[in-house]
Amino acid sequence: MRDVEYMHVAEDSMNKIKEGAFLTVKSAKGLNTMTIGWASFGVIWGKPIMMVAVRSSRHTFAIIEAAEDFTVTVPAGDMRRQTAYCGSKSGRDVDKFAQCNLQTSEGRRVVSPIIKTEGRHYECAIIYKSAMNPTHFRKDYDPSLYPKKDYHTLYFGEILACYETD
Amino acid sequence: MRDVEYMHVAEDSMNKIKEGAFLTVKSAKGLNTMTIGWASFGVIWGKPIMMVAVRSSRHTFAIIEAAEDFTVTVPAGDMRRQTAYCGSKSGRDVDKFAQCNLQTSEGRRVVSPIIKTEGRHYECAIIYKSAMNPTHFRKDYDPSLYPKKDYHTLYFGEILACYETD
Repeated sequence: MRDVEYMHVAEDSMNKIKEGAFLTVKSAKGLNTMTIGWASFGVIWGKPIMMVAVRSSRHTFAIIEAAEDFTVTVPAGDMRRQTAYCGSKSGRDVDKFAQCNLQTSEGRRVVSPIIKTEGRHYECAIIYKSAMNPTHFRKDYDPSLYPKKDYHTLYFGEILACYETD
Repeated sequence: MRDVEYMHVAEDSMNKIKEGAFLTVKSAKGLNTMTIGWASFGVIWGKPIMMVAVRSSRHTFAIIEAAEDFTVTVPAGDMRRQTAYCGSKSGRDVDKFAQCNLQTSEGRRVVSPIIKTEGRHYECAIIYKSAMNPTHFRKDYDPSLYPKKDYHTLYFGEILACYETD
């Protein structure tokens, strides 16, 4: 395991996240992992921040609403089968960890665990969150995004740890 | 002038933005530029998105609230004198362009102009905005950030053009 400076790897991670990464959250409401294809990296409030978005219809939503933190695992190898499964099935109906043979490792700085796989891991403390207000979403923007009006809540996490595992 | 793929330069830009970049906005409410040290880059709504934050106390705030777009110019050379000035003076009181001998060039894809200088330029259409709700900001987080309660509004802009000029 080696620590990495998040700014040196953010761009590389973003390109990989587009192919599917794991957002893993643990709170009093349970533990779940889901596939994300969107995220952002930057500096806000003077801190390194990763933002992830979760729709209100997601099983993960109730869990992350009760959470202090989240992790993102960007797999180094080909996990398309697992990310496809975890992006289409709900933790309400299936045990994704068992079905995909995914194991977790304890977070170093946060309560939420990481996915135990070769790759890069971000551990983030939730600093701010914002439920999307559709009034402020541009009216002519992609109407296919929210046919069910299950808008995203945006979670801004301070990156407390960033490291790679083999 | 050469086009660049934003994802290839986002990390490099982020490191430079920490030292000061220009956020330039033009709308029916006027034209102004201000210095930013925070921003984020990523993929949200399936699009390349740059996020910037403007406090409600800023002269730029009324302008960007009426705007369709903004630009960010990341200077390649040493413009610390200009970014210090544009970050501490208000466009209400002074003409920053005249005082700093800053000229603008027309945006290629947006109404807001860019700062005419050697560097990298992002032209962004505002897709979504969100005024910070302090209720959802972590209570124990840096109390020095908002002594005047002039919270930021977050502007999410789709990156329509990204290019470098000499």
